[in-house]
Amino acid sequence: MLSKSQIKLITSLKQKKFRQEHGLFVVEGVKTITELLASSLKLHALYTTETLNSSAKNEVLVSETDLKRISFLKTPNKALAVFEIPKQPTIENKGLIVVLDDVRDPGNLGTIIRLCDWFGVKKLVCSKATVDCFNPKVIQATMGSITRVNISYVDLETFLKDVEAPVFGAFMEGENVYQSALPTDAVLVMGNEANGVSKAVENLITEKITIPRFGDLQATESLNVATATAVLLSEWRREGS
Amino acid sequence: MLSKSQIKLITSLKQKKFRQEHGLFVVEGVKTITELLASSLKLHALYTTETLNSSAKNEVLVSETDLKRISFLKTPNKALAVFEIPKQPTIENKGLIVVLDDVRDPGNLGTIIRLCDWFGVKKLVCSKATVDCFNPKVIQATMGSITRVNISYVDLETFLKDVEAPVFGAFMEGENVYQSALPTDAVLVMGNEANGVSKAVENLITEKITIPRFGDLQATESLNVATATAVLLSEWRREGS
Repeated sequence: MLSKSQIKLITSLKQKKFRQEHGLFVVEGVKTITELLASSLKLHALYTTETLNSSAKNEVLVSETDLKRISFLKTPNKALAVFEIPKQPTIENKGLIVVLDDVRDPGNLGTIIRLCDWFGVKKLVCSKATVDCFNPKVIQATMGSITRVNISYVDLETFLKDVEAPVFGAFMEGENVYQSALPTDAVLVMGNEANGVSKAVENLITEKITIPRFGDLQATESLNVATATAVLLSEWRREGS
Repeated sequence: MLSKSQIKLITSLKQKKFRQEHGLFVVEGVKTITELLASSLKLHALYTTETLNSSAKNEVLVSETDLKRISFLKTPNKALAVFEIPKQPTIENKGLIVVLDDVRDPGNLGTIIRLCDWFGVKKLVCSKATVDCFNPKVIQATMGSITRVNISYVDLETFLKDVEAPVFGAFMEGENVYQSALPTDAVLVMGNEANGVSKAVENLITEKITIPRFGDLQATESLNVATATAVLLSEWRREGS
């Protein structure tokens, strides 16, 4: 049985301010939980309808009704875990750094974290208005790669003014990325879903790049920010492969 | 005021079998509707809380309550349109053709259609178990590019046996795509989210390719099918840019 205070704590973690207050976040689904249990993250509590056979001390067996009470999903997925938000160490500005200027969609952020992990980008720097990476929908989309990428939320203007490497930005109008020199030490800025890179950040960009369009030129749509990130990270890495 | 039979017809279009029976599909949101009105698609009816100022004969002004009654969204977005499902002409097997082997997630299919549009892929061939491209969530994710890509649902084994171009497939183990020769006339097969390319289809693939992983090699996750498609289509096109 779950106590009222446990239920209250867990459901409060849907909101960023309570995640920050308690230093905790929620993960659902056996697959992702198993992956995070094997990482360096510290488990706070694990609620599951059948034992995960892990060595987790904090495992609590619950009924499906109880799981439904605490789950953020329409169809709860056998287990829900609460982990401690890790303290991100400050890491060097070396190699390729991805910067997000107000990415708002949790699915996009989750996909971008997974891409950073795949393409070996160790550092992801987000503007303060970017969706929180411990948002349950982000966690769902990262598939565990959140533990392998160093993510921080900072004032982008301050960060970009300090950085020594050239600052690239993805724009609709810019140099053809397929013909650009992409240095090992670099910053790549991706903009907001609707508005792209903000004016203030645009002023700090030294190289505007673009993914050329090969289809019907009359169509004005842009690429989705996550798929554009996929193409750009691939361009950065392909030479070294 | 909407009649009961109108409401019944529209809400039935959530299901594939009724979309096929009536030859109609639903689009929501002013932006996507405006884009589709400008395309070759035939409008069946447009329900809107304020006139879209289009020359649409079939525009019906409705109250927000009525819109809520027919909308598939939690927060209806000012307008809902019903379009006729177009007859897809059979087009030649030329250039790059993308084939989907049981892609199930509507967001992934929508993103892949948008990518085909961007990278000038005219023909998308789906297995019969791939999610229906007139599913409302797919339409939402395509942002109008559905009118610029020829999409068909066929028996993949029959299609792949007939095709003359080499058949590439995305696999976890395969030739490094960055070092592969990618011919202009080719078929690229992308597999299911959880299981990849099915055994029967794998037997018909002539070239297995892979996007190398640059991050931590211990992590076993794959790339999401939509972001993998983004990288592969970019590789096919970059030479010509």
